[in-house]
Amino acid sequence: MVEKGLIAMLRTHPTRIADFGCSTGRNSFAAMQIIVEAIKRKFETDGKVMQIPDFQVFFNDKVTNDFNTLFSSLPPQGLYHVTGVPGSFHSRLLPRASLHFGYSCFSLHWLSEVPKAVLDNTSPAWNSGKVHYFGARREVCEEYANQYAKDIKSFLDSRAEELVPGGLMALLVPAVPASWNPNSAYTVLTEVYHLGSCLVDMAKKGRFYEDKIDSFNYSVYFPVPQELKAIIEKSDNYIMERMEILDNPGKRSLTGPKERASYLRAVNEGMLVNHFGTEIMDELFDRYTKKLKASPLFSDPNSDKTILIFVLLQRKPIMFF
Amino acid sequence: MVEKGLIAMLRTHPTRIADFGCSTGRNSFAAMQIIVEAIKRKFETDGKVMQIPDFQVFFNDKVTNDFNTLFSSLPPQGLYHVTGVPGSFHSRLLPRASLHFGYSCFSLHWLSEVPKAVLDNTSPAWNSGKVHYFGARREVCEEYANQYAKDIKSFLDSRAEELVPGGLMALLVPAVPASWNPNSAYTVLTEVYHLGSCLVDMAKKGRFYEDKIDSFNYSVYFPVPQELKAIIEKSDNYIMERMEILDNPGKRSLTGPKERASYLRAVNEGMLVNHFGTEIMDELFDRYTKKLKASPLFSDPNSDKTILIFVLLQRKPIMFF
Repeated sequence: MVEKGLIAMLRTHPTRIADFGCSTGRNSFAAMQIIVEAIKRKFETDGKVMQIPDFQVFFNDKVTNDFNTLFSSLPPQGLYHVTGVPGSFHSRLLPRASLHFGYSCFSLHWLSEVPKAVLDNTSPAWNSGKVHYFGARREVCEEYANQYAKDIKSFLDSRAEELVPGGLMALLVPAVPASWNPNSAYTVLTEVYHLGSCLVDMAKKGRFYEDKIDSFNYSVYFPVPQELKAIIEKSDNYIMERMEILDNPGKRSLTGPKERASYLRAVNEGMLVNHFGTEIMDELFDRYTKKLKASPLFSDPNSDKTILIFVLLQRKPIMFF
Repeated sequence: MVEKGLIAMLRTHPTRIADFGCSTGRNSFAAMQIIVEAIKRKFETDGKVMQIPDFQVFFNDKVTNDFNTLFSSLPPQGLYHVTGVPGSFHSRLLPRASLHFGYSCFSLHWLSEVPKAVLDNTSPAWNSGKVHYFGARREVCEEYANQYAKDIKSFLDSRAEELVPGGLMALLVPAVPASWNPNSAYTVLTEVYHLGSCLVDMAKKGRFYEDKIDSFNYSVYFPVPQELKAIIEKSDNYIMERMEILDNPGKRSLTGPKERASYLRAVNEGMLVNHFGTEIMDELFDRYTKKLKASPLFSDPNSDKTILIFVLLQRKPIMFF
């Protein structure tokens, strides 16, 4: 009885971990398990087994995310307590100073919205005839870059309020190198560019009105490492413990143009259907697959120069002067 | 800056509230708002506006609950941070000593499972030819009562670990009076009884095999007040601050047999379809409506003697001797 009471008291500080942008959990479950087990192991090697806390994991994604699928595919329970948190990670989601470890993998490239100016035909940044910023005019690229900087700032500011002082955050951010040779390599930007050009081809063939292209822009952005570093360093709330450039670990699973096209379709179809309708999807991805097949680049995953930036941040203590 | 820092520090203890068995939220949202606003008002009238905490509400229901609908119908945000917690409230769901206010309304009558003995044709408690315990043999009633006591104990034990010492829990438990006159009144038990008799009638007419009845039992239980009181008092973990018998506040919204039948169908159809199939549902509820119409009792909501037991519990401090 005494021992039980003591254990209860020692354990009264649960450790809270959140995954921002978890989707339906497939990759998230493995990551959360690794994090929880690493913390537990630390207690064990420090000889503090009795002090191992309860863990609570917050799975976050947008309100429209399929949380039913997430919850029904949870791994066998026991390691941590599960919660789902619906809402945009560009705003506050958790109570002040309640989070010990934040995590986000392959999600921060999603913008909170398409930059307004690129859809505005009175703006110098109007992105007519294109669906993304790659290869577009300077003004378009700037609007996208500004939106990204604003969104990452909102993300960091929100998490700064949620993290406990000293709390950690590990981010895995898809990005592109500062430059790459388009004759011998490609990145995720090249892929979005080709998909956009297929849409333009279809508009020209009369599959839909060309202004459908003008009113659609991809709401994703892929920074170069220095750019992300500069955005993070502007925040007073964090110490950057580490920043590393990783080769995109997912690329080897996509062995050729067909697999790449299927993957892009799986990730983007919902968004494309919303704007262009279901009817054109088969033709669009047929054209896209053909476009990739026409280039020798896309049959070699090693030509994919997309990178993943790993950043480890620590929340600074709150200062009172 | 100083002020901002101070506020941040004062507010570092969020208040956590959970609704156990929230379904898709329709009634839960109003209840959570009332609770949060009452706590905020307390801070205000105590002149502690600066110390009003962040609120985090945990909406709990089974893994199979439709959390997508819950999340997409949330009231406009701002009052509290939202989380969903999938899992059975008969087991642990939240970290130890992390919950300040627990709530459960019209959910604790759901048993974790049908008592095994009532489905076992070798047991003296086998409930052959019936789908519930009302009007059944003593052994059947006892099995149901034991299962209920066991389930309420699991619920209370789990919450005792999750609540902070001094934390509160408000329960609204559907129940029946110790006795009522079946000639002038009815309860929810009467209704389940009639639905069961419609199923038996249909089996006799050959709509399905009679053993379908034997392998199905309703997994709900409605205690009498003294019974619930005794179960709660067995727990060492709580002080019972209050217990009140409330007239079932929902009954006036069901004005006649047709409305009652529609309500029962909405609540029970999923479970019935799982066992009996969709095909028989229309006939079943037609028969049921006719059965209710045949009795003058069911046209008067005042004849509904179902009650709601309100219990306010406080988690005792953990003792070390």
